[in-house]
This record gives sequence, C-alpha cells and structure tokens, in this order.
Amino acid sequence: MAVNLPPLGTLLPVPGVRLGTACAGIKQHERDDLALIELAEGTTAGAVFTQNRFRAPPVELAEARLGSHAPRLLLINSGNANAATGQAGLEDAEALCQRAAQCGAQGIEAEQVLPFSTGVIGERLPLAPMRRAIKDAMRSLTANGWADAAQAILTTDTGAKGLTQQVQIGGRAVTLTGIAKGAGMIKPDMATMLAFICCDASITPNALQTIVRDAAERSFNRITVDGDTSTNDAFVVAATGQADHPRIEGPGARLDALRGGVSELAAGLAERIVRDAEGATKFVTVQVVGGATQAECLRVAYAVAESPLVKTALFAGDPNWGRFCMAIGRAGIPDLDPAKVSLALDDVAVAEAGLLAQGYDEAAAAAVMAKAEFTIGINLGRGPCEQSVWTSDLSYDYVRINAEYRT
Amino acid sequence: MAVNLPPLGTLLPVPGVRLGTACAGIKQHERDDLALIELAEGTTAGAVFTQNRFRAPPVELAEARLGSHAPRLLLINSGNANAATGQAGLEDAEALCQRAAQCGAQGIEAEQVLPFSTGVIGERLPLAPMRRAIKDAMRSLTANGWADAAQAILTTDTGAKGLTQQVQIGGRAVTLTGIAKGAGMIKPDMATMLAFICCDASITPNALQTIVRDAAERSFNRITVDGDTSTNDAFVVAATGQADHPRIEGPGARLDALRGGVSELAAGLAERIVRDAEGATKFVTVQVVGGATQAECLRVAYAVAESPLVKTALFAGDPNWGRFCMAIGRAGIPDLDPAKVSLALDDVAVAEAGLLAQGYDEAAAAAVMAKAEFTIGINLGRGPCEQSVWTSDLSYDYVRINAEYRT
Repeated sequence: MAVNLPPLGTLLPVPGVRLGTACAGIKQHERDDLALIELAEGTTAGAVFTQNRFRAPPVELAEARLGSHAPRLLLINSGNANAATGQAGLEDAEALCQRAAQCGAQGIEAEQVLPFSTGVIGERLPLAPMRRAIKDAMRSLTANGWADAAQAILTTDTGAKGLTQQVQIGGRAVTLTGIAKGAGMIKPDMATMLAFICCDASITPNALQTIVRDAAERSFNRITVDGDTSTNDAFVVAATGQADHPRIEGPGARLDALRGGVSELAAGLAERIVRDAEGATKFVTVQVVGGATQAECLRVAYAVAESPLVKTALFAGDPNWGRFCMAIGRAGIPDLDPAKVSLALDDVAVAEAGLLAQGYDEAAAAAVMAKAEFTIGINLGRGPCEQSVWTSDLSYDYVRINAEYRT
Repeated sequence: MAVNLPPLGTLLPVPGVRLGTACAGIKQHERDDLALIELAEGTTAGAVFTQNRFRAPPVELAEARLGSHAPRLLLINSGNANAATGQAGLEDAEALCQRAAQCGAQGIEAEQVLPFSTGVIGERLPLAPMRRAIKDAMRSLTANGWADAAQAILTTDTGAKGLTQQVQIGGRAVTLTGIAKGAGMIKPDMATMLAFICCDASITPNALQTIVRDAAERSFNRITVDGDTSTNDAFVVAATGQADHPRIEGPGARLDALRGGVSELAAGLAERIVRDAEGATKFVTVQVVGGATQAECLRVAYAVAESPLVKTALFAGDPNWGRFCMAIGRAGIPDLDPAKVSLALDDVAVAEAGLLAQGYDEAAAAAVMAKAEFTIGINLGRGPCEQSVWTSDLSYDYVRINAEYRT
C-alpha cells in the first residue's frame, strides 16, 4: 500500500562501517530480525531519542552510554520493543550488549554497544535465540551489509528505507549512508522511529550532536502518521573519521557541508516513512504559511494532518473543505481570524478569505485529491512564518493492520 | 452499530414548550430535517457554544441574540451546517429567523429566534424549501413533539437521543426534557454538538448560565469520538418559568436541585452521543486517578481515548497494554514516573508499577475487552485528582462512514 516508496537502490559502503544480520525468530522465523552495525575505533556519534515518558530500557541505556563512551557496535532488533519491561528489560538489554561485546572485535567493551529495539511493547526479549543470532550476525559483518540491515530492522513497514550520497568536505569526498524503519506509531518528538546514518567524516561529538538535532528537527520532527509517539524512537548519526579531511570542531564551511548531507538524508528517510505509512494510499504535504509564529504554523499543520475526519476525506479523495476549516479552527490559535484564511489543493484555490473561492471548481479539486501525492496549502494571513509536515490518509487497511497487529 | 443506545422512551412535555418538525429536503427527502422549539413568554435561557475558530454564522448569531433578547423560538436544521459561509451565511440565518418570527405566535421578534444548523460544512442553506418547511413546522407545534424533534436534528446518528425527568424544587415538581444529536466530529470544547434541554423552572438568566456551564463541563466536555471539534456545537437550556416555585435567583437549595437535574440529563445525553459514535462497536470509559491535577488527568484520559492505536486495539478487543502505556507516556506530563503507573481493564489488573502485573491473566483481560462496554482504569500514582472521559473505538465503519459522507 506504500505511496511511491522508492526501491532501496545501491547503498554505498562507508569506510569504517560494517553491518551484519541474522534471524533470531523474535516474531517471525522466515526473515532476519537482528542487525549489527560495527563502527571503527575513533568513531564519534550523536543521537536524539523519544520524549515519550514510557521510554524503553534500551533507549535509556543507549542514551546513557552515548554520553560516556565512544560507541563501537549498534545492536538492533525488530519484533519486540523491550518497552515497559522495567529493570528486567534493562538487564536483558545489558546482557545482550555484553554478548555482542564478547563476540565482537577485540577491545570492544559492553559499554560501547548501544541497543535499539522496535516491535511489540510490554514483552520480554527472547534472550537465548538472540544470543545465538548475535554470533551469527557478527560472522556476517560486511561493508556491503546496508541493504540486509535495512530489511532486518523493519516491523509493519512494507519496504526497506535507505539513502546514500557523497558530499565534499575540505576537498575530500565523504560518504553518507542511512537506513530507517517506521510505518505506524509515528509522530516523532525530537527523534524518530529508528534511523541510523553513518559517514566517514571526522568530527567532534559536540559538533556532531548539533547536526543531529538540526537534522531531526527538519525531518523526523515534521512527519505524522497517527499522532502516536513511540516509546523507542531513536535517530543516530555516526562518523568514523576515516575521511582524510581536517577534523570538524565547530561552526564553518565543513560543518555546514556535513550538516547539509545529514539533513538531506534524514529528510529523505522521514519522507519514506510516511510513504510507507500503515495502510497509506496518499502522501500528503500540509504546508502552512502566513503564520505569526512557526509554532502556530506547526499547530495548524498537525491539527489538519492528524484529524481523523481530514484523513478519511483524504482516503476518499473527497475535497470536503469544511473539514480542513474545522481542523484549522480547532488548532488552538485563540485570535485566528477565519476571514483571513485561504486554502488550496496544489494549485487549485479552494477557499479565500474564509469562504469558498470565487470560481471554485470542485472537479479540479477532486482531481488533485485523486492523485497519490498532493499538497494542502493553508495561508493563515497573519504573519511571515511557515512550516510543513508530511502525512498519510486513514484507510480501511490502517484499521486492519492495527486491529490484527498481535494476531 | 450503536453500543447499547437506549430507545428514546417517553419524553415528558414541559409546560410552556411546544415542538414542531417538517421536511425541507436539505440533504434527504424522506425524513424531517427542520425542527422548531417554541418557548413561552418569560422563558430564560443559557447556552455554551463551540470554541472552534471557524464558528458557523448561526452560532455567532445565536450567541449574540442570547445576550440581548429573551428567546422564543429555537430553529434547528440538519443536513447543512451553514458553516464557513461568511456574511452570506449570516444573512441566510437572519432571513430564516425573520421568516420564523413572521410565521410564529404574535409578538415574536426575529431577534428572539435562535438558529442552529448541523451537517455539511461550506455550503449555502437552501432558503426556499426551508422557508416552506418553517411554515409547515409551525403548524405542527405540539407539547408532545419531543420525539419527532429528536429525530429531525440527527445527521449520521443511528438513533434519536432524549431524556426526561422530574425534580422537586421548592416543593414543586419541575419537568426537564432534553434531546441531543452527534456521532462524529465529537470533542466538544466548552459546548457539545447540539443539545437542548427545556424545563419549566423559574430562574434568572445569570443563575441559569452557571448551571449550563457546570453541566457542560461534566458531560459534553468529557467525551470524544475522534478529537475533532465541530464548528457548530451548541448546548442550550431553556426554563419557561411556568412551575409555581419561588424564582431561583442565586445559590441555594433550589439552584442545586435544578443544577442536579440539568447535569444528570446532560450527562445522559453525552453518554448517548458516544454510544452512537460513528462506527462504534465499543463504549469505553477512560478513568484516570492518582493525578497531581485534574488537568493532567484529563490530558492522559484524552491521549488514551484519542490514540488511533488504542482505538484500533479497542476495536480488535486486543489487550495490547503497550499501546495504553505509549499513549500515557506521550500525554505531555514531563515528570511522569512510569514506575508509579498502574493499569486495569475493569477489575483485571494489567500493569502495576509500570510493568505487567504479577499473575497477569491475558485471557481475563481479553474477556473484558470482548465486552461492548468496559473501563480502562489508569492510576498515575502521583496525587489525589481524577477525571473520566467516554470514548468509542476506531472501526472499519468509522472509515467507511466518513469516506462516504458526501457521496
């Protein structure tokens, strides 16, 4: 049901990064569900994590370790989120990291392994098959393992999501490759579902962290499928330092170049998550301009993007513009003047000054909404600010997928 | 698809109140879609209206007139909300009120007619057939017209909603009868969809308004179907003053008695709206206790009640408790401690101290969720406050009803 989700294509190897996968049979037995990303010594990393108060133990552990140790291994499993599992879940995550450190290259300590889990909430991880799978995955480590890893981390996704590019930094080509998973429980809050970007740039941890925050803010923090924020969201960027350019230590052209590359990849991965949203038949951009503040633009964009009545109209391809007005009107802007609001579907003017546009052509509006991709353009008519979010529709399949999730 | 929606039963006539209905053929031609409620001279009224910024013209007009004139006629139509229609919509509403005043009892002025509309947003009202229907409805005025009026104001509702009771005030029996409509676009904000309660109590407008606000806060402001707030919500209470008790002018036993009666009717009508929620197969109470403030209890209750992932689990009857935790965790309480949160489905303990409850019996939890009605009990473990909301599930039929609404 994905909406123009691009095939994975070739993902470039990143010097200093190897990936391996294996099947632990956590939820399904016919596909790999465990992935390892090995990072060369000297790698720096930055990350943002979910703001959900029911943070999963692996999220707590990964964040704590990132603050004190240089990571060498990312250990990722799908099929079970190890969330709402408390102290036992924390100990499970620690034990699996310990296992990975033992099976990994010499000199890797357990504290240098960061755990990530995604899947069902509230169940313990199956330790024995995962211990076995960690060993298997370690044996399969290869610089060309990106596609297999992109596949192994999926849950309800219908397709793997990855992107790759090269940017010039200090006269040297730097390679960036990233993968992500996510299709439901998507409204990242200062983070995303799971996304990992590796590059061979050389950069200090503090400088890298500013890039991660910026990139998340412009990508994963601008999408919503169902308004539900996961307990396990994490977005990690690792830089192995193997590219032969002067180390990035602060603001400047080199930082900007890397920031540009990471942001572009993050935006591309975020877009792919919405294209693969559960049950999606539409990929919709909600663009709000003319706001007094960026925050109010975002409030309106999310109110429209998450309204069940808007989303069922998107599914039906029905230009029921009253529902857009309803959602704009309930977005919580106390002094919004409806008489200044205008609305368009792509280039078809639907409402002007709060009323049906002069010469409004419902057939033209319906033709826009019949497309798989279009933009809902909203002008609040009260200021210079603008914001956009990507969203999907609410279909029978969204209900089916989530009603049947555990059966 | 309604969940144990009680049949209408007998609705007691209220001295000083007559009701009439007619078919204007606004959206459908085979049923009445216009209702008049005539109020005797001397009636006082109070009301609360939607906080949506795209308020419909009839809402603006009704609120303005209520502040300056004693109402004599409530003019209600279904099938068209007369919303997002601007100045033209306002003039349409004024013209129809003028028509009703002309057709009505001698001495009624247009300013004493309050208009209410519900249905499709963004289309003009069909004036000619409505003018004709107003005359027809006026001819049918009768004290026994409550059931017909309850039917005429419906849109996607599957059944009429009404309640009646008598309370003792100052040693006299006072009759209260109320009707309501609403099934979707339901998250009233200081108001409801449309609800009208009439009684023959004698009370000043100011005293009545305090009762209306209190009753709305405890009833219509505690329900959600889809989190979407209508442009046309209104809740009106009219008191004809024909009961022979000393006039209620301020706090005291008589005010409390009337407040109790109005609140009970409002809660019953709000409950019926959720029982008849679009596509509903479940009627669910989300009860949050142990909060530090009532506001945070409400935030958690609404986050759970409106989460698409919770609502699809309710539809599936799946005790996927991780989704409840996810929704509690994203409710925006920054210092919530998951280790103090517990969760129950009716009397089945599901989570304690943020973890699966000792001896948790999934079959017992599934048996609760297989019922048409149950309570999700959440204890935040951080204070003495509590709040409850009523909600419904997210089914295939919710998608179907709203995808097909205009076809």
